[in-house]
Amino acid sequence: MSAPADDVFARQGFGAALGVVPPIALLLVDFVEGFADPEQFGGGNIAAAIDRSTLLLQTARRLGWPVAHSRIVFADDGADANIFSLKAPTLLRLTEASAASAIVPTLAPLQGEHIVRKTQPSAFFGTNLAPWLTQKGVRTLVVAGCVTSGCVRASVVDAMCHGFRPMVIRDCVGDRSIDAHDASLFDMSKKYADVMPLEALFAALSALPESG
Amino acid sequence: MSAPADDVFARQGFGAALGVVPPIALLLVDFVEGFADPEQFGGGNIAAAIDRSTLLLQTARRLGWPVAHSRIVFADDGADANIFSLKAPTLLRLTEASAASAIVPTLAPLQGEHIVRKTQPSAFFGTNLAPWLTQKGVRTLVVAGCVTSGCVRASVVDAMCHGFRPMVIRDCVGDRSIDAHDASLFDMSKKYADVMPLEALFAALSALPESG
Amino acid sequence: MSAPADDVFARQGFGAALGVVPPIALLLVDFVEGFADPEQFGGGNIAAAIDRSTLLLQTARRLGWPVAHSRIVFADDGADANIFSLKAPTLLRLTEASAASAIVPTLAPLQGEHIVRKTQPSAFFGTNLAPWLTQKGVRTLVVAGCVTSGCVRASVVDAMCHGFRPMVIRDCVGDRSIDAHDASLFDMSKKYADVMPLEALFAALSALPESG
Amino acid sequence: MSAPADDVFARQGFGAALGVVPPIALLLVDFVEGFADPEQFGGGNIAAAIDRSTLLLQTARRLGWPVAHSRIVFADDGADANIFSLKAPTLLRLTEASAASAIVPTLAPLQGEHIVRKTQPSAFFGTNLAPWLTQKGVRTLVVAGCVTSGCVRASVVDAMCHGFRPMVIRDCVGDRSIDAHDASLFDMSKKYADVMPLEALFAALSALPESG
Repeated sequence: MSAPADDVFARQGFGAALGVVPPIALLLVDFVEGFADPEQFGGGNIAAAIDRSTLLLQTARRLGWPVAHSRIVFADDGADANIFSLKAPTLLRLTEASAASAIVPTLAPLQGEHIVRKTQPSAFFGTNLAPWLTQKGVRTLVVAGCVTSGCVRASVVDAMCHGFRPMVIRDCVGDRSIDAHDASLFDMSKKYADVMPLEALFAALSALPESG
Repeated sequence: MSAPADDVFARQGFGAALGVVPPIALLLVDFVEGFADPEQFGGGNIAAAIDRSTLLLQTARRLGWPVAHSRIVFADDGADANIFSLKAPTLLRLTEASAASAIVPTLAPLQGEHIVRKTQPSAFFGTNLAPWLTQKGVRTLVVAGCVTSGCVRASVVDAMCHGFRPMVIRDCVGDRSIDAHDASLFDMSKKYADVMPLEALFAALSALPESG
Repeated sequence: MSAPADDVFARQGFGAALGVVPPIALLLVDFVEGFADPEQFGGGNIAAAIDRSTLLLQTARRLGWPVAHSRIVFADDGADANIFSLKAPTLLRLTEASAASAIVPTLAPLQGEHIVRKTQPSAFFGTNLAPWLTQKGVRTLVVAGCVTSGCVRASVVDAMCHGFRPMVIRDCVGDRSIDAHDASLFDMSKKYADVMPLEALFAALSALPESG
Repeated sequence: MSAPADDVFARQGFGAALGVVPPIALLLVDFVEGFADPEQFGGGNIAAAIDRSTLLLQTARRLGWPVAHSRIVFADDGADANIFSLKAPTLLRLTEASAASAIVPTLAPLQGEHIVRKTQPSAFFGTNLAPWLTQKGVRTLVVAGCVTSGCVRASVVDAMCHGFRPMVIRDCVGDRSIDAHDASLFDMSKKYADVMPLEALFAALSALPESG
């Protein structure tokens, strides 16, 4: 996006910084085999985002953050087919036991991490993710995952609506289309979230008071 | 967006048509004075979308569709300030009686049309819009409004998640940024909605059986 | 509840009839082994409600209604423990593969019927039940299940809030406490739903126009 | 409710204590003129609950808790009539400017307190109450209001589902029917909330560490 566009948004009052307020949690959106594979739902910079997210996940675990992982899971018999799967019928292949719906091994959930099964773009819609975070007093949600312009963006908009400060980690989100990735990062940075590289998140964490 | 991107989406199974299934309702998103005015939140092709939407609204009324209009309305004392208004503090100026939050005169609601007050991008989040449509048995939601990459897109994603078939009318939605407008129309057409010009909606309506 | 109470409600305007408006769907709430068993979560008139519901389910299938079954299912590792399970920790035993969380054989779901996994009282909260019904144009939801004062009532309140007309079938809902059962049937009949015996539902269905 | 019933619930694992975990907020449900008046929607022990709640509200303000007040408010033209108002058509009289929908003077909101307009029993359904609390990191919600078996109970169930610990203050909730009041207090104490008199809340607050 061009400088002129930036100007309009600044002049109209968009793009203020939210800042990191603890407690913090991590959400990994749909990092599953089917989205890691360019022959299925993958491509673009998704593989790079998965690689980079291992460091983020490690950090979250070291700091004791609540960690949630989302997966798209439709019923084996397609009984819960919906408008999303009408629009993209191949999604119905993502069933509980399908290889494509398994979280990639490098980001595999540990005991006690929350696995969110969903049939919509947002990890919040029709799930108990918001209550799970609320119950833990979480105020800031760090978001990684794929695809940036799809399930990540929908989850980020919902995270904001549910009252969490979304931090989108630029190098930990990926999309099959780089154009769509860039456009959604721009929109999110202006209206819904702070968007930053992983190094900037680490710097923000270092600047927090100890008790955070 | 380029042809190569289109290819990837088609190959992966995105972009199937939903089709218009009656009963049908109309949602006009945030066509208020503040978004009609380039000095406030407007610009780009929003004014053209407002003009074009008068014909759409006329049609909806003639056909007896349920019609809903959304407005952003924050409390006069800012007690309901949220993460969205942290990101864009100027939104707090949109209060019940502010000129900026009034629906534009050419699209002013009639008695019996539903006015949805919201403080989030989506007209569905934290409102009774979905139940209002469900109660009427609505299955297809025609969407006009602004801005395409913001409140329109968030409302369209939620409309789909709530079980409605969203029809986004390309010439009846507008954005302060044409780049953002185009990118969101592309994303919606692949994953969440049918995107079409008003003429194509009229053609689809003509093709419905009489009882529709 | 006594006649004087009834008087107050009538005078204040509560207790109007909703009526059956097609399309109609059936929701069976938590008819699982653990709630059929008085040694676990059962007792009272739950067994009788299960028996009676086989006839209701048969009818729903014959008429081609959408059918949904809810089950309480917590994660094997308790990662999704919530406030409800803090209040009643034994609920955490209801995991995907536990015998207690299996739907009773006489009401076992058929292919294409929707199985709603939930961790809250209401079958609507944190699930895709409302969109599933909305997508099918459903306007009336017939409800059976257990327990009347718990998951049935919470589901009925939410059904109403989501825009569906709830019909609670008095002899197809049960509770471990008959006092609680009676009190919730009274409340629902005044404020949230039509409450009727199965025979009255059959009579109402007979009175519908053919096309319904 | 009788001792035998208590036994069943204890044996099945219901009725554990949640405890007060700060941060704490206060929700006052529907303490409006129409519900204070036995000739409209009031009666029973509602007036006593209003009296007693002034002390609770005073305390909340002194301790700096977020305070939310709910009101039922339907559109002047009835455009948002719903299933709840079909069941109780007199509710449609509660419009923005009607005397009956005004919060009682002794509990009138102060600047910065959140006024939740709703058209459903629960103060959470179709509103931004949950995000408002989440954004503030709230973990425990103290609940007063009317009526116990209606809007209070529905709000308490939803508070729990959204991840908050509900504390129902027995002498600060009221109902037009004492039978219904008692039955809902019993249900809530077993399954959804801690139920206690105001004095017990004060004792629990005294026992919190200073920083709470």
